[in-house]
Order: sequence, then structure tokens, then C-alpha cells
Amino acid sequence: MVFVSRHEHFNAAHKLYNPKWSPEKNEEVFGPCANANWHGHNFELIVTVKGEPDPDTGFVVDLKKLSRLIRREITEKLDHKNLNLDVPFMKDKMASTENLVIEIWKILVTTLSTISDRAQLHCVKLYETPRNFVEYYG
Amino acid sequence: MVFVSRHEHFNAAHKLYNPKWSPEKNEEVFGPCANANWHGHNFELIVTVKGEPDPDTGFVVDLKKLSRLIRREITEKLDHKNLNLDVPFMKDKMASTENLVIEIWKILVTTLSTISDRAQLHCVKLYETPRNFVEYYG
Amino acid sequence: MVFVSRHEHFNAAHKLYNPKWSPEKNEEVFGPCANANWHGHNFELIVTVKGEPDPDTGFVVDLKKLSRLIRREITEKLDHKNLNLDVPFMKDKMASTENLVIEIWKILVTTLSTISDRAQLHCVKLYETPRNFVEYYG
Amino acid sequence: MVFVSRHEHFNAAHKLYNPKWSPEKNEEVFGPCANANWHGHNFELIVTVKGEPDPDTGFVVDLKKLSRLIRREITEKLDHKNLNLDVPFMKDKMASTENLVIEIWKILVTTLSTISDRAQLHCVKLYETPRNFVEYYG
Amino acid sequence: MVFVSRHEHFNAAHKLYNPKWSPEKNEEVFGPCANANWHGHNFELIVTVKGEPDPDTGFVVDLKKLSRLIRREITEKLDHKNLNLDVPFMKDKMASTENLVIEIWKILVTTLSTISDRAQLHCVKLYETPRNFVEYYG
Amino acid sequence: MVFVSRHEHFNAAHKLYNPKWSPEKNEEVFGPCANANWHGHNFELIVTVKGEPDPDTGFVVDLKKLSRLIRREITEKLDHKNLNLDVPFMKDKMASTENLVIEIWKILVTTLSTISDRAQLHCVKLYETPRNFVEYYG
Repeated sequence: MVFVSRHEHFNAAHKLYNPKWSPEKNEEVFGPCANANWHGHNFELIVTVKGEPDPDTGFVVDLKKLSRLIRREITEKLDHKNLNLDVPFMKDKMASTENLVIEIWKILVTTLSTISDRAQLHCVKLYETPRNFVEYYG
Repeated sequence: MVFVSRHEHFNAAHKLYNPKWSPEKNEEVFGPCANANWHGHNFELIVTVKGEPDPDTGFVVDLKKLSRLIRREITEKLDHKNLNLDVPFMKDKMASTENLVIEIWKILVTTLSTISDRAQLHCVKLYETPRNFVEYYG
Repeated sequence: MVFVSRHEHFNAAHKLYNPKWSPEKNEEVFGPCANANWHGHNFELIVTVKGEPDPDTGFVVDLKKLSRLIRREITEKLDHKNLNLDVPFMKDKMASTENLVIEIWKILVTTLSTISDRAQLHCVKLYETPRNFVEYYG
Repeated sequence: MVFVSRHEHFNAAHKLYNPKWSPEKNEEVFGPCANANWHGHNFELIVTVKGEPDPDTGFVVDLKKLSRLIRREITEKLDHKNLNLDVPFMKDKMASTENLVIEIWKILVTTLSTISDRAQLHCVKLYETPRNFVEYYG
Repeated sequence: MVFVSRHEHFNAAHKLYNPKWSPEKNEEVFGPCANANWHGHNFELIVTVKGEPDPDTGFVVDLKKLSRLIRREITEKLDHKNLNLDVPFMKDKMASTENLVIEIWKILVTTLSTISDRAQLHCVKLYETPRNFVEYYG
Repeated sequence: MVFVSRHEHFNAAHKLYNPKWSPEKNEEVFGPCANANWHGHNFELIVTVKGEPDPDTGFVVDLKKLSRLIRREITEKLDHKNLNLDVPFMKDKMASTENLVIEIWKILVTTLSTISDRAQLHCVKLYETPRNFVEYYG
């Protein structure tokens, strides 16, 4: 079993804001992350799959295909977008990095088989900043 | 003459949109950067000053003071903000990295003397993404 | 279960020196790391916790609180210090990165509950240089 | 159990080409990676071992010895080489990063005991580019 | 005058070999860089242009256009290629990073005007490895 | 004229302390950098030379020779050392990064001619931390 990873990126705006709470409570809990006019990040996304290399290619997965899958299913839907307003799969969810990484996993775990019958999704890792990142293994 | 640099960072939302133009022309010129609902970045800011080291300290400038100056005058006004809506010194300007770096220069060149009488401002460098950056020397 | 990580840093001096051994044996085993007058590093510390996101915040842990905890309990006690002389929790221990990461774990595993009742400590990772690093999972 | 890692690097040329296939099929499957005249990379190699620290040294493994082992057994055989033509342990194998990391593991798992009786090989990680990397755990 | 930079990359094989010299002299001067079977690198290319921002866009140059220009004129001709065999503009030249950066400059200085009438080429910077890089200013 | 750079590194301990001042004034001016028991850094050193490439080699300077020169003259005298106590060329000087980069320049400017008759020293750049760095051009 070899683990193979591909790094992609996207830029997006978001805010952390719970509509069930008052503005004061949002400000108290989320601080500047609750700024009504949004803020944003350069997100770095690392997707890891695992499997046995194909004897004919030496590949667990063709990384060009994995890159295209991630772009088509994930980063084209997030890049230069507002995570709270523009992204159907984040609708009605808190736009935290934790929730975002879970939704990215759900999409990739059902679409990975379209590019490989030997690779399984292992991990989705997402950097919000160079100092804050999350990982999800399903 | 020694050149001394300090690296700071901030996260912000913005869009590129010229209000004199139609939405179609903005979309044509700026593409996804014109997204009405904003996008954002982790900006990395590097400020370089120059001067002769003080014989008593070995310093051109005390980097703790330079860091505090940059935070107070620049990054606290930009961090977790919307460059188009929340930042007085960007009002009525296109929120491009080029314009932002010029405005940052203008503020630092008039405030640097409050922390040092031997350092002169040399360069302001601003990364919008790891692959796109600008520099301004006055 | 989502894994959430925070990156902090500190600068410190240390040496590798076993007081039970002769200076010659220390020099033989540790080489330049045994230099009597010390050497030092920019340490990079990554703390990973795990848990289920809180439905109200989308957070496993508030990263501002995790950052403050790491600073108060760990990096303020290590930054600009001598690991052999200035740090109570390293007293009478070899100042290796392995021993340091174990002591950091012991402190965080008992204090993490003060900032979150849903996050568990998962991993402490410590870079001594960009090319040498250690990890501890308890 | 503490995990200790060492980062090394090497530069090499290679191509992805299956001699059982026609040139057209190679071009179709591998694209520019099948270029007859080769291409190349700066490979970054991270080797992780695990074990309990030695009470006398604080070390799971002496990283100078681990570095020398990796250089002697691995990187000196790969650096400034052609992976398809110059490397005995890659002979008759597809020169994919997946196959390379498996062969590196096989060599290190049998030679690690020459430098330590307490460290076990845990992981070999290999970056082909900053955006593509593989890991192998045996 | 603002300086604007764009970072691109390519992977290539090359060797350092002077055909006027004996194999022994090549080996003596270039060492492993003269390996007959080639070696390779992940090259990182940074192109800097300068000019006054356009008042309507805030841009010195549209970075999407600069990126496309660099890809069409430079990196598509170098990526996954052999610098000695596959690249017309390096024919009969030593495949050193110094010579490569001069040739890249010559191409960009004559094509930049196709995407901007206000930007001038300022610098071409090329990393051969993370530790070795060259710059050319014309 | 092409500019060619080489990146080296060293680890060292130091403190900022002016012996003409009281301990209180040192503490006031230098804060934790004046810690009596020292602190330390992973210093990153980038040396840039300039010249015209040699037509026979394509080199401004042989980077293997430049690397060996920097190691012999500079980093072997600084690595795993105490900048205040162990380094003859820093004796009786404040151990600031500014003063260190000037002394490194003085040594390299007089020894560069031993490895090349076409390269001139252009810049010495020294990172004390990833966020603080200095440059000296003579």
C-alpha cells in the first residue's frame, strides 16, 4: 500500500457567523473572524489516496487525473468564491475549516472511482493559513 | 548601510471592480477576481529599512519596535478586513496589490521616524499569493 | 473526528551533554552539539488535537484559545531561553528534541481540557531544524 | 515511542515509459512524462524511524548517523543520476515515485540496524515536486 | 514605479558538458553534473516587470496575461524537456542556469509588449534547486 | 552581468548584551534577547556574486567551489558555536545580525578571488528567523 498526495490551492472569502446568535455573541465567540464584511485566505488543499501501484504504470493513481478531479469537483467551486454565499455544498453550514474539509471528503470519496479502480481516499488536509490546518480521514 | 527586513502577515477579503464600468466589462477584465461576493488572501508583508547600525546596540532598527509599528499602522487596519469596504486609506481606490503597497509605503514613510532616527524606509513587498507579489521603493 | 493543528515557534539555546560522561566521550558521541558554549535553533512546534466539530461554532477547538494555551504553557517558558539551564521541566534531562517533545506533550495533555471539553491531544511535532524533526503521540 | 525524521535530497532524471507498449500508448498514458529525451526533478526524501529514546543520549537515533546511512545507501546512488539507466535497484521497474519509494524502504529496512538497535523504520516519504509526493510504511 | 512578479515552474533534464573538451576534463570540471545519462531539476522561475499602475485597473500588468505569456513562450518549451536536446533556443549553448536565464530574458523582453504597453521587463530569476539560483537584469 | 546565489546554513547561540551598560539597561533595550544564559537560531545565509558567464563552462562561478568557500571561511566557524564567545571575528562586537553580516562580507570579499577571477561579491543576506533578515552590499 503506497500513499500518494496531490497539492492544490484556492482563494476564498468567508466569515464565521452563527445566525442563531446575536451579533454581540458572534463577535464574542469569533472575534475578527465574524467581521460582517468578510475576510479571506489562500487555502492549500492536500488530497491523499492509497493503493497498490499498477504494474503497467507504476502508479497508484495518475496524478494528472487526480489533479483534474480535484479541480473540477472542488477547487473550481471554491476558488475566488465566498464560502458562505457562493458554494452550494456549504449552504446552511458554519464556514469553518473543519466543516469544509468534511464536505470536500464527501465529494471526493464518491467521485474518486471515476478516475481509478485501485485508489481509495485516505486523507483530506486543508491549510487555512500557514499556521492553521485541519485533516479528515472519513 | 545595512538593509533590515521584517515579515508580517494579514488575511483580508477584496474584489477587483471598477465602478465606472458595467458588470460585463468588469467580468471581462478581472474575471473571477470581480466576483460580487468577494474572495480573499493570506497576505504576506515584508518591510525593509536601511541605515548604519548603532554602535551601542548593533541595530539599524529594533525589530520589535518595527514589528509593533507595522502592526499598529498597517496590519491591524487590514487583518480580517474587507479591503474595499473597511479600510479608510483604500477608499475610492482599486483594491489591487499595486495600490495597496503604495498606500502602505505612504503610511510607513511618515511614521518610521517615531521609532528610529537612523533607519530610512527602503522597500515594501507584498505577497498576495505564494506566486504573485509586488514591491514598491517610493 | 477532525484533526486540527496549530503552528507556533520559539528560539532557544541548548547543548547535548551527559554529565555522567567525560568531556571526551561527550565530544565523541555528540560532536559539535556538545559545544561547551552552547548553540541554538529556531524551533517550530505543531500541536494537533482531534475531536468532533461543535455544531454551533464549526470548531473542534477555538484556535485562538489553543494558540494562547501553547504560548502560556510552552513557548513562553522556552522562547529566548537555554533549554539546559532555564527550563524547570527539562531539569536533569538530556536536552534532546525527543525528550523535549515528550515533556511538551505531558503539559498539554493535562491542560487542554481548560480550553475545550471536546478536543483530545493527538500529536506534538517539533522541528529542530528544517531537516530534523520529531513527533510524539503519547 | 517517539518518531524521528531526517530530510535529505537528490536531483535525478527519469522518464515514465513501459517497454511493453507502443510509443503512442506511452505518450497517451504518460503524456510529457514519457519524453524520450528525459526530464528531471529535485527530489526531497524524508525518512522516519521510531523507538524509545536512549536514556544516556536522549536519542532514538543519532541523526548524523541516520543522515550518513541515507546518503551512503540511497542518495549517493540516485543523485545526479538517471533513474531508468543508472540505478541498479530500479532496473526493469517503471521509474515512478511509487516504485522508487518502495525500493528505498527495502534498502533502509535492512540497513537501519547497522546504526541503531532501538530504531525501527516507520515511513519513507518522497516529494517528486512540491505538489506531488508519496509515502510508504512497509 | 511598482515592481510586479509572477512565479512559474517547470521540470527538465540537462547535463553540463563542453563538447570541445575530453570526457575526463568534463568530469573534472563539472563532476556529477556531467553524468552522460543526464540529471534534472524542478526549476522555479520568477519574472518581474515594472511600471506605473493603470488608474482604471490598478494593474501594472494583468498577472493572468503575464502567466499565460510565460507559459506560452517559456515554460511550455522547457517543461518535461531535455535542455540540451529539446530546446531550440539553448542549441549549441552550455545548459547552465546562467545561460538559460539570459535566453529567457531575451524572449520575454521582445514579447512583453504584446500583453502590456506600460510594463517593462525588470528581472528574470531562476532557481535550479532551493539552494542555487541566478538573476538577470538585461 | 548575471547574479548567482548560494544558500548555506548554520546554527548558533548568542545574546545581545552591551557590557558598557547595566544589566537593567540591557534588559530594557534588548528584552529576552539579553537572556544571560543565551538563546539561538537556525541562521540561513545567502551569498550572491555577479559577473559574466565563462563561455567554456556557462558559469559565473562554480557553485560547488562557492559552497566550499562559504563553508570553510564562514559556516564552519559559526556552526554549533556561540557568536559572542567562540568566533574570533565577532570578538568585542555586539552579536547583532547587522554586525554579523558585515563581518561575513569582509571575509568573503577578500577570499572570493581564490575561487574565481570573474565573480565579484554582490550581496550577503542572512536570515536570523524566517521573519527577520538583513542584507549587506558593501
